Amino acid sequence: MEHKTFPDWADVAPRLIAVAAGREPADMIIRDGIWINVHTREALRGHSIAIAEGRIAFVGPDASHCTGPETRIIEANGRYMIPGLCDGHMHIESGMLTPAEFAAAVIPHGTTTMFTDPHEIANVLGLAGVRMMHDEALMQPINIFTQMPSCAPSAPGLETTGYEITPEDVAEAMTWPGIIGLGEMMNFPGVTNADPKMLAEIAATQRAGKTVGGHYASPDLGPAFAAYVAGGPADDHEGTCEADAIARARQGMRSMMRLGSAWYDVESQITAVTEKGLDPRNFILCTDDCHSATLVHEGHMNRVVRHAIACGCDPLVALQMATINTATHFGLERELGSTAPGRRADVILTSDLRELPIELVIARGQVAAENGKITVDCPHYDWPDTARNTVHLGHALSATDFEIKAPTGANRVRANVIGVVENQAPTKALKAELPIIGGLVEGEGDVCQIALVERHRATGGVTNAFVSGFGYQGRMAMASTVAHDSHHMIVVGTDREQMALAANRLAEVGGGITIWREGRELALVELPIAGLMSDSPAAQVAAKAQAMVEAMVTCGCTLNNAYMQHSLLALVVIPELRISDLGLVDVRTFEKIDLLEPLA
Amino acid sequence: MEHKTFPDWADVAPRLIAVAAGREPADMIIRDGIWINVHTREALRGHSIAIAEGRIAFVGPDASHCTGPETRIIEANGRYMIPGLCDGHMHIESGMLTPAEFAAAVIPHGTTTMFTDPHEIANVLGLAGVRMMHDEALMQPINIFTQMPSCAPSAPGLETTGYEITPEDVAEAMTWPGIIGLGEMMNFPGVTNADPKMLAEIAATQRAGKTVGGHYASPDLGPAFAAYVAGGPADDHEGTCEADAIARARQGMRSMMRLGSAWYDVESQITAVTEKGLDPRNFILCTDDCHSATLVHEGHMNRVVRHAIACGCDPLVALQMATINTATHFGLERELGSTAPGRRADVILTSDLRELPIELVIARGQVAAENGKITVDCPHYDWPDTARNTVHLGHALSATDFEIKAPTGANRVRANVIGVVENQAPTKALKAELPIIGGLVEGEGDVCQIALVERHRATGGVTNAFVSGFGYQGRMAMASTVAHDSHHMIVVGTDREQMALAANRLAEVGGGITIWREGRELALVELPIAGLMSDSPAAQVAAKAQAMVEAMVTCGCTLNNAYMQHSLLALVVIPELRISDLGLVDVRTFEKIDLLEPLA
Repeated sequence: MEHKTFPDWADVAPRLIAVAAGREPADMIIRDGIWINVHTREALRGHSIAIAEGRIAFVGPDASHCTGPETRIIEANGRYMIPGLCDGHMHIESGMLTPAEFAAAVIPHGTTTMFTDPHEIANVLGLAGVRMMHDEALMQPINIFTQMPSCAPSAPGLETTGYEITPEDVAEAMTWPGIIGLGEMMNFPGVTNADPKMLAEIAATQRAGKTVGGHYASPDLGPAFAAYVAGGPADDHEGTCEADAIARARQGMRSMMRLGSAWYDVESQITAVTEKGLDPRNFILCTDDCHSATLVHEGHMNRVVRHAIACGCDPLVALQMATINTATHFGLERELGSTAPGRRADVILTSDLRELPIELVIARGQVAAENGKITVDCPHYDWPDTARNTVHLGHALSATDFEIKAPTGANRVRANVIGVVENQAPTKALKAELPIIGGLVEGEGDVCQIALVERHRATGGVTNAFVSGFGYQGRMAMASTVAHDSHHMIVVGTDREQMALAANRLAEVGGGITIWREGRELALVELPIAGLMSDSPAAQVAAKAQAMVEAMVTCGCTLNNAYMQHSLLALVVIPELRISDLGLVDVRTFEKIDLLEPLA
Repeated sequence: MEHKTFPDWADVAPRLIAVAAGREPADMIIRDGIWINVHTREALRGHSIAIAEGRIAFVGPDASHCTGPETRIIEANGRYMIPGLCDGHMHIESGMLTPAEFAAAVIPHGTTTMFTDPHEIANVLGLAGVRMMHDEALMQPINIFTQMPSCAPSAPGLETTGYEITPEDVAEAMTWPGIIGLGEMMNFPGVTNADPKMLAEIAATQRAGKTVGGHYASPDLGPAFAAYVAGGPADDHEGTCEADAIARARQGMRSMMRLGSAWYDVESQITAVTEKGLDPRNFILCTDDCHSATLVHEGHMNRVVRHAIACGCDPLVALQMATINTATHFGLERELGSTAPGRRADVILTSDLRELPIELVIARGQVAAENGKITVDCPHYDWPDTARNTVHLGHALSATDFEIKAPTGANRVRANVIGVVENQAPTKALKAELPIIGGLVEGEGDVCQIALVERHRATGGVTNAFVSGFGYQGRMAMASTVAHDSHHMIVVGTDREQMALAANRLAEVGGGITIWREGRELALVELPIAGLMSDSPAAQVAAKAQAMVEAMVTCGCTLNNAYMQHSLLALVVIPELRISDLGLVDVRTFEKIDLLEPLA
């Protein structure tokens, strides 16, 4: 397997020195631009940047002393020269794309560095899967650092993941070349209660001199938050209001503010800087989760920076939040995040500092994109069969696998029903009286069936239950192997035959999303890598995902973000009611409950 | 040998979490102060800091939930709670004190962290000497990090040091627990010319993930400076004007601004922040060199911060420059430099943010000083004989060792004379016609003799020459084993008998400074450790140094900083004329020259 290694500063220092001194010509010079200096927070007209060996050798008003006949000259023509943008925390899998295709999608938007937590593949393939993502990341022409996932399973005892991450795994991963730290420590009750496993993961990361990512998803800023901070996480991206942002910065964390496809946490927090006047150095912009459609149609970190500016942030400060602040946080400020000598030559040309059109992207000294078109290769990892063949059903499913047997002699029964709530991640724990037909409990009205199909160990296990809120009509089913966080298969349907067809179809294609109605497949998004990602270009995946959403509408579903609702129904850390391979889980009490209750 | 190890955050995380959560009581609580938050640049009234295991467990408006019957309560009574001060670059040897006694001198001034480059002892004892300094540093109750000296000898080929530092030494030192990076890379022409040895030292440091200290002592901000930056040094403290400070920050270095006993580089540079409005995050305050008298009578980093504020810097910004900016630079921002959870509990109480009286110092959770009095022990390293017996003369010297033979048959001769210039480090290369008496060249008027006495290898070598400018009168001599940078012995005198007495006296006491007149010792400063440092308290050393300066006056010397002039006369990197064990050196051409020239 290829590791595209990028030479260290020390490796190329003699050449950089020779270029800066004028003894040797640069490989490339960007001439006559406005140098956006994120160290000093200045915009300096009439500067040139000289590049050699993929790194910046010289920046100054006049680079003619390092110009030779072979030097490639790029005329900035007075445009702004800004550092390549950094995404401080994100999950590549959220784009349903491999690292290579994700990189290819975001490079034209000016993203040249990502700090990525392959949490989803960790649940499916464990440490080996993390290593595959890490290895493909290192093959890319931009900087993709891996945060070692910390919490698989997310809810120990309430679900069975494909693999579990242990403190020993974390310690091992810390020795890999592309690991930058620990991924979001989501188990905040575990930290607050000094869970030895969570603290061992944090300790292994700290002892390796790396950064512990945080994830404190609670509005409680009292002693519970203080205890979490005392446990060691160095950043947090779960803040949603100004008080959250301020509390994190004051406590010595870096406050990461998200604008993802479905996260809107910048506008509500950036007032900590724009209105309250806090030192901006500890604020960082990130995406966390971006769908492929967002990447194709809206952008990536350029969208976040533009949004921060639209929220009233000074453009230079917003750029610092997506460049040097991020680099400093991860101990990389001498390596990237600014356009200064020695750093990787990641430079964007733009003619407008507020709208931020990404006109030219240089990554590690290569022209990587021009006017929205990528001009570099993003090599694919040779994903092994273990990664391409992850949907293990044990046997082909049939309608009988989805039958819910009624108690003997009953006519009707009361069932616990997962109630999907429009525009909210939490569900409601509902109850419904349901009819019994031929000894089987049947959905009725808006209540249809949901099944969690075990797919990691071919146990043949199917957990059946009921869900309401999708509005499905007619005989249909939808199945997905993206099923946070343990990523078994979630099948939702009004008809058991259709459910079996959908489930078997995903086993056939190696995972993804499929929708069936009346025996016919309406839409399919193939996600052959771990059942989570496609190695096709983002535009293709976005088009298929769009067709999938349209098929959901065809089946009667009118929810916003309907697919996200589907894929989160097994996320047994968010209240109130979820499904897992172990049964129905009441996330208010973290206990399994029975599907059916006696009527009287 | 004792290594006072301080537990890692990870070691004590369970306790910190328990205290923050209110499940266990804190060891100490500082109650009701104004929290100077250097992360957000805020002063927050009515806060308390809870401490456990020497680290901060909790900071908030109310710490009553972590108060127990055994918790020591310190009432801040509305005073400011500021982080312990950090000295970003300094040489302990400049105080003529061991690390222990230096620490004891500066703790009452609120210094709790120092980044120290034991360059002087490296010249005398090599890597072993650096290790001794490093080891005593780690024994102290405050944080003393060692920068591995980079340039011994400072001037290869022009002097013979006791030991030389090699790239292999640097690589080895990077594995020691207290090494934070490479000490000031003074050989800036070497870097600019890509000297393989200098680049190997930088590379070893970068590869260890540590910080390369810079030292670019030139006003040239053109390609030579650019080439130096491209070579990798991450900071620089040699700037003297605003343009220097701005250039360093823009090029991605941290600009360190000095106020030492004889350095005044803050006022002239801080306008980059106070007037030009550059982001202050890349500016750091340091002392570089402080004499014991300064420590005893004026202060240390509190003096520097106070001065920066007097120069117009916002007090919160000035404090950032002596706390979090420094910590971030050295990759220690999660360890110290702020009063946030997990960090070492280094806290100062002061009632005035501008005058900065240091009323209480807490270091690693212990009360370390109160109202100027130290309250902790600063343990002494058991310095071995190799460190205490470093003045090796070969034989007892006599007047004949200092004779300068005249050319046969001459009556007078022309000599090259080192001309000391008031208030300047550079000397003048003067020429003087001197009389010959009994076949020996003799000083005349203000021209007296200078000798460089070899003391590292007992070669018996004495280099004789002439110096002018001290104004000495009568039969006298002054000798010092502090003789930058190779630290042989410099003897200056009007009389060869007195010179021999002085030199032999230093051999007898193991090094230091002595002044003799008419066969009697006027003053002695014993520096038994490597001939550079005393392990006596700073007040005693300062008093002896004061007596030494007064003795120089008694002998007719009226220069400011006369002793510093004496100790720098062998510093063969500063123009124009210097003396070394190899002869007289013209530092304008870096060539050895003859002492005597034909008259015609």
